[in-house]
Amino acid sequence: MTIHYEVADVAQIDAIRLEQSVEMPFDTLPPHILETIVGKVVAQDGKSVTIHYPNANIGGEITQFLNILFGNISLLDGIRITGVDWDELPSDLFGGPRFGLAGMRERLGVPTRPLSCTALKPVGSTPAEFAAMAHEFALGGIDMIKDDHGLADQPYAPFLDRLMACADAVNAANAKTGGKSVYVPHITGPGEVTERRFEAAVAAGAGAVMVCPHLTAPDVMHRLARRSDALPIMAHPAFSGGLVSPTHGFTRSFLYGALWRALGADFVIYPNTGGRFTYPLADCLAINDTARGPMNNFSGAWPTPGGGMQRATLHKWIETYGKDTCYLIGGSLYQHPDGLRVAAAEIRDLMESAS
Amino acid sequence: MTIHYEVADVAQIDAIRLEQSVEMPFDTLPPHILETIVGKVVAQDGKSVTIHYPNANIGGEITQFLNILFGNISLLDGIRITGVDWDELPSDLFGGPRFGLAGMRERLGVPTRPLSCTALKPVGSTPAEFAAMAHEFALGGIDMIKDDHGLADQPYAPFLDRLMACADAVNAANAKTGGKSVYVPHITGPGEVTERRFEAAVAAGAGAVMVCPHLTAPDVMHRLARRSDALPIMAHPAFSGGLVSPTHGFTRSFLYGALWRALGADFVIYPNTGGRFTYPLADCLAINDTARGPMNNFSGAWPTPGGGMQRATLHKWIETYGKDTCYLIGGSLYQHPDGLRVAAAEIRDLMESAS
Repeated sequence: MTIHYEVADVAQIDAIRLEQSVEMPFDTLPPHILETIVGKVVAQDGKSVTIHYPNANIGGEITQFLNILFGNISLLDGIRITGVDWDELPSDLFGGPRFGLAGMRERLGVPTRPLSCTALKPVGSTPAEFAAMAHEFALGGIDMIKDDHGLADQPYAPFLDRLMACADAVNAANAKTGGKSVYVPHITGPGEVTERRFEAAVAAGAGAVMVCPHLTAPDVMHRLARRSDALPIMAHPAFSGGLVSPTHGFTRSFLYGALWRALGADFVIYPNTGGRFTYPLADCLAINDTARGPMNNFSGAWPTPGGGMQRATLHKWIETYGKDTCYLIGGSLYQHPDGLRVAAAEIRDLMESAS
Repeated sequence: MTIHYEVADVAQIDAIRLEQSVEMPFDTLPPHILETIVGKVVAQDGKSVTIHYPNANIGGEITQFLNILFGNISLLDGIRITGVDWDELPSDLFGGPRFGLAGMRERLGVPTRPLSCTALKPVGSTPAEFAAMAHEFALGGIDMIKDDHGLADQPYAPFLDRLMACADAVNAANAKTGGKSVYVPHITGPGEVTERRFEAAVAAGAGAVMVCPHLTAPDVMHRLARRSDALPIMAHPAFSGGLVSPTHGFTRSFLYGALWRALGADFVIYPNTGGRFTYPLADCLAINDTARGPMNNFSGAWPTPGGGMQRATLHKWIETYGKDTCYLIGGSLYQHPDGLRVAAAEIRDLMESAS
């Protein structure tokens, strides 16, 4: 296991080597432990450092991988993790996206154009209201029609009722238009609950699922991606922000572009620059490049910028981010004076004209 | 659900109200949703603000509770969560510690003195080596003999082998001394794995378990605490550091003192000031006060400062933090020139003399 770091102070390097392996002072370590177990610096250039740990320290589990990655050092400050050498890891630890860039293009019958995504909102609406919205979005030609990540199992629209109503509505619209819009239920819950909701999504004919890996657990997303009945997975960043501070933690491209992709996300939703959140453009471009670029033998994932994207400027984002991108536009569609179907059709036209 | 925040800028208050409920612009919201679903400011004093959300928005799940608490706003900056009004929540959502301060005193037969804790290290050792250390620590009278949090299911010492060897060793030492030392296996893994390890710990006669809630999932710890065969739980902060930045996220007293306690931690391990980590003393004192103080109908939890505590200064920490504290001292015991049993006995003497 080889991890790349940027440290604020080179004195932190020995602390990382110890904290992330034996968690004991050097003077207490038997020589064979110091030699074979403790992290070893394999490259260093100023404050950029690469440390190698034996794969055996992982013990075959994603939880312990995350522990070596950022367990105790999460409690320190000024350490950024920029990358992992995925190809050195045990081949059964991570599998990458099950569908990814090419697999989704094939499922949707969309060889070159970008994809569109929107969200069913707001919490407090009934299943029938969400289904009506989903129907309109599908008639207008949105590709991925996802639940808002705030929709869980509230009494206003219990999960199963919402799932069945929205899956039926999108499938009915597809039957009318010949389209392939996908309903994407939000299935996050405690681990077992997430898996049961996944199975319900398969049974209801949903074409994908959305999960918040940092609300349930990263290993849950991995398990979903490796199921024999896998569906494409959209990963949502709720509760992840503390991991990607600009001064400590994971770089945004590492978390959203690399780690999530390794864990099986086919779509990585992240907060676009210039919206309601404040990620710089460079971070967004780096997430895109990492999600799509070469990485072990993993399929590429769809960068899915969202969080305040506007109808009026969507064409500029398409120019900036390109076609292998899924554009998530939510609230702005609800503000369209002519309603959801017209708003969706305009988005679809933009996607077609970019192909 | 009532949440207390400190914001860097009062303009963030409306953003919080929306992001953590409907995630839509005000102008798109039907009046009944704006009235009944969106967060409402119920108190404000400058940059301190209290927002109330309907409990129905939680939908009965800890994952969605965490989503409302810090889902999308984790992606912003300058927002600190200082508290939650636990007594307003559905009574089956959180249960608090199953044993807590009084329950552990009863189990250990220790009416007034502080508790001691140490860790079995380093990863790379064999089950027999860990068992020998555990035996020595128990003969010396350490109360809680826990696995290092870096021990998972590595081939050097697979979980079940380590569990059985160490539980037997501690129980054998207790039989010799008449003591009640507790072996605390580290059971963190993916959710289901954690539960199976818990069951193995019960079967092996371990007296408690340690879990890293942010490596597995917070809801897993809650589920363990509510089992009919519950054991005392020590919660370890691995991977949690990103949540408690001084400028954004949870205050340390809220995460370790309140949220973990609500989730069922009997012991809350946190990085002590003046050790290998850099939490200020005020934060440590606030964690202690929150873990032990009045909070809904929950039992108090044991503050468990660790992370570089030294034999030579332990008596000062006892003066500072008092008797309702579990002192975690690891590496320093391994540095004792006369070995683990003597080191442990010195710690035990300190604990007895403080009672």
